[in-house]
Amino acid sequence: MPSTYRVETFPVATPAASAVFITVLSQGPLTRVELARRTGLSSAAVTKAVRPLIEAGYVIETEDDGVRASVGRPANPVQVDGGRALFIGVKVTGDEVIAVLTDLCCRIRTARHAPFTTQRPADVIGLITALTEELIAEAQGLGVAVQGVGVAVSGDVDRSAGVVHYSPFLGWRDIALAELVSAATKLPVTVDNDVRALTIAEQWFGGGVGCANFAVVTVGAGIGCGLVVDGRVVSGSHGVAGEIGHLPIDPQGPVCHCGNTGCVEAIASDSAILRRIREDTGRPVADSAEALQLAHAGTAGAREAYARAGEAIGRAIGAVVNLLGPERVIISGEGLAAYDLFAEHIRDAFGAAAFGAAARCEVTTRPLPFEEWARGAAAAAIQTFIGSEPR
Amino acid sequence: MPSTYRVETFPVATPAASAVFITVLSQGPLTRVELARRTGLSSAAVTKAVRPLIEAGYVIETEDDGVRASVGRPANPVQVDGGRALFIGVKVTGDEVIAVLTDLCCRIRTARHAPFTTQRPADVIGLITALTEELIAEAQGLGVAVQGVGVAVSGDVDRSAGVVHYSPFLGWRDIALAELVSAATKLPVTVDNDVRALTIAEQWFGGGVGCANFAVVTVGAGIGCGLVVDGRVVSGSHGVAGEIGHLPIDPQGPVCHCGNTGCVEAIASDSAILRRIREDTGRPVADSAEALQLAHAGTAGAREAYARAGEAIGRAIGAVVNLLGPERVIISGEGLAAYDLFAEHIRDAFGAAAFGAAARCEVTTRPLPFEEWARGAAAAAIQTFIGSEPR
Ligand SMILES: [Zn+2]
Ligand SMILES: [Zn+2]
Repeated sequence: MPSTYRVETFPVATPAASAVFITVLSQGPLTRVELARRTGLSSAAVTKAVRPLIEAGYVIETEDDGVRASVGRPANPVQVDGGRALFIGVKVTGDEVIAVLTDLCCRIRTARHAPFTTQRPADVIGLITALTEELIAEAQGLGVAVQGVGVAVSGDVDRSAGVVHYSPFLGWRDIALAELVSAATKLPVTVDNDVRALTIAEQWFGGGVGCANFAVVTVGAGIGCGLVVDGRVVSGSHGVAGEIGHLPIDPQGPVCHCGNTGCVEAIASDSAILRRIREDTGRPVADSAEALQLAHAGTAGAREAYARAGEAIGRAIGAVVNLLGPERVIISGEGLAAYDLFAEHIRDAFGAAAFGAAARCEVTTRPLPFEEWARGAAAAAIQTFIGSEPR
Repeated sequence: MPSTYRVETFPVATPAASAVFITVLSQGPLTRVELARRTGLSSAAVTKAVRPLIEAGYVIETEDDGVRASVGRPANPVQVDGGRALFIGVKVTGDEVIAVLTDLCCRIRTARHAPFTTQRPADVIGLITALTEELIAEAQGLGVAVQGVGVAVSGDVDRSAGVVHYSPFLGWRDIALAELVSAATKLPVTVDNDVRALTIAEQWFGGGVGCANFAVVTVGAGIGCGLVVDGRVVSGSHGVAGEIGHLPIDPQGPVCHCGNTGCVEAIASDSAILRRIREDTGRPVADSAEALQLAHAGTAGAREAYARAGEAIGRAIGAVVNLLGPERVIISGEGLAAYDLFAEHIRDAFGAAAFGAAARCEVTTRPLPFEEWARGAAAAAIQTFIGSEPR
């Protein structure tokens, strides 16, 4: 069922007010004094920004923690009332739609999965809207309105136009996804690249909270990267950014599906590893699970393929770190299943490639199942709702 | 002689006012209406920001161009009065100090060069202060106060601390350059990495005006890169960023002075090209000028070294473009002298490496002699003066 609630207008009018809300959202509860310190705004500006948010119920004062409030600048910490609004996030993989219902703090309330066998846009979009409508119904049962839907798809996605230009895994070209899903659900729909959406969730609610500069590197079917520079998710002037999978790292390397030679993805993607193991062992290895088994059993050729993949990923992270100097790189993605096989090679190659103080960057791993990617889509919807979408 | 003028306080108190001034500075003359459009601020906010700037003489109204001014929101374009304040920019190369006197619009009034033979910090700093004091005297002759000095040095420079941590070309380690020059000149001194300073000048006054995302790639003794992402010069969390020279692009490549294998700089720097030509031709080639002559004469081995260098630079630019999706890459540096020898190879390698729409990035060249690098240092000083230094 389409939403029967009216979408509300979020009471934030200025960039300063937006910065205050995002800081409360991702780092709260915080006192106004602490908020002023973290945003670089005056206490008066913070108090002014907080007031309409409290009046509209998006922000609440927590219990007095013993500090006496001075008039007009209360010392009570404030925090976001997560239950004040709900959002839906949808991640589309090559064979499954995952949808989550989250609150305003991007906490998952419900998750639903629906596998599919045909990637025809009309069929997949039908699944997306069906799952979305189930979650809208669930939200109505909770008595809270859904204020927006986010949909995350891999590939070249134009968020501002709401269009999937090209998604290789789905074989989609120029699908006006936001418009189609919005027509069915009567809700504002934000479409974004899946890695970028995941990065937004990591920035506001995950491993990147408090980091002005960090990167999320996802390994698996493809090798992706979300970049946060100076507190903002990088989008690129032409919609392309974070294409770590197509960094050219070896002129003697295999040919990539993009046409270039020696891309990271041509060495380190699941299918590249599989191809390499088939070639080097002569066995008809069926899938990544079997490849993993062979490598864990110490099969010659299988371990080496993972080692080469780890080295390629480590060199690619070295490139990111040398260009951007992030505080932290978070490695995630379904390829983490093989992490024990290439962790050491990633570390060594990264260590060799990182230049000077850039080597101080912390490289961590964080398992993020596809529900977390769907949560990333919800984070993109929250971003749209609070009027903080990238320009 | 040290400055006898009092350094003024620039009348900009808010990020909005700062954005307005920078837009007038780099894109003016502009009407307030156009300023509001370009900054995304309200006309009232622009008018409020412009007023104290006009009162203090930093911004002036241009001639009425026939449009009738409405009360409180005049239609006259405004522009920066460049002559209102002067700045000094200093670039230190491996064997020369170049100092320029610029106005507030970063136009060069005078340039002075002083070669040196010893790189001892005390001696070079003595030269820097001597040239600076000559230019301060010149400014006093003009009756305009110098409001700040910028010094640009290659290597790992901590701008906020004013310290050169490590400058390989000078052999300097942990020099408190800002403090030392400030003590001698009695002026605020901003010290920055030379490529970053050049990038600031390009962003505000050069080839990057109006670009939210662009890169400056400098080729020559080293291979450097300044990055502007979302309107801001990237500094990195640990002071390292834009180290395009140490992108790992060939596991079979030569060993780099940084210790890693196959860095861009190990293939494409002047000394790497020279070494390669000596090896491949067996001739005792003296310097880059002779190497260039050999290549232009078609000597086997010499042309190939430039071709390989061009390919490495093109792949490195491909990496920048795939990660950040800039609108424009500006290639500069003293290595442009060999540009005819590697232009085609840069173009081909970039074209092969650029992924999808990222290939739409415009790759241009722009000769920027060392005086322009000194101007970059002046731009950093202007940035400090107007309170817009990076956080
Ligand atoms: Zn590729
Ligand atoms: Zn290197």
